[in-house]
Amino acid sequence: MLIMKNISRRKFLGDGYKVSLAGTAIFATNNSITKKMDHIFIHHVYFWLKNSGNAEDRNKLVAGLQKLSKATTIKQFHIGKPANTNREVIDSSYAISWMLVFDNDADQATYQTDPIHLKFIEECSHLWSKVVVYDAVDA
Amino acid sequence: MLIMKNISRRKFLGDGYKVSLAGTAIFATNNSITKKMDHIFIHHVYFWLKNSGNAEDRNKLVAGLQKLSKATTIKQFHIGKPANTNREVIDSSYAISWMLVFDNDADQATYQTDPIHLKFIEECSHLWSKVVVYDAVDA
Repeated sequence: MLIMKNISRRKFLGDGYKVSLAGTAIFATNNSITKKMDHIFIHHVYFWLKNSGNAEDRNKLVAGLQKLSKATTIKQFHIGKPANTNREVIDSSYAISWMLVFDNDADQATYQTDPIHLKFIEECSHLWSKVVVYDAVDA
Repeated sequence: MLIMKNISRRKFLGDGYKVSLAGTAIFATNNSITKKMDHIFIHHVYFWLKNSGNAEDRNKLVAGLQKLSKATTIKQFHIGKPANTNREVIDSSYAISWMLVFDNDADQATYQTDPIHLKFIEECSHLWSKVVVYDAVDA
């Protein structure tokens, strides 16, 4: 019965779905199809603070990004900070990671000129010294 | 009836879920709660090819990553290439983007020594000249 429900929900949701909060046993049935994210546009921004290590400025930036996350074109977002990993290839010098998932190029372009985005830049751009952006579409 | 179904599924899935292939009208009810990814570890790797622009090497790397995606600790993955965006802050010089979502630090650590990962490095590391990794946890 549980399995039947799972199958029907999968059919309903389509090729790819995910659960951020892994919770119940039912998701142990995850396979490569459900794990794959595709037909998306990933916009990943890394911020370096002007006042490096300043907690107040960092919190202001996070608060700004939380407001910015209301932009309707954004399908998913993650506000991150460097993990405690340390290998030669890892760049953990940034302060805040802002990872956005859009449906397509057009939505990302719309986001760039969304008044919420322009307001964010107006209110928060004095906080950062450097921004690096990587935009990726399905390979 | 449709609304009732949606609510009950949301309760079942928990705080955050996403649908890669936006499909049906039901997902127009997306809000900031469902958009937010949290309680995750994002491991984002950018590869630069030794033979820059070489399609065969690029395809070999993508094929290697597709095999690597079977690592059981990976919750979600995206294999990307630079989008057609062009602003001063955008780095589009990389060849392939490899974005992984793990549940936590421990799963990412396990992935590093997963035989599937070691095999990937053995088979594919000759293809790239540079790798940059950004690891991010919830801010």
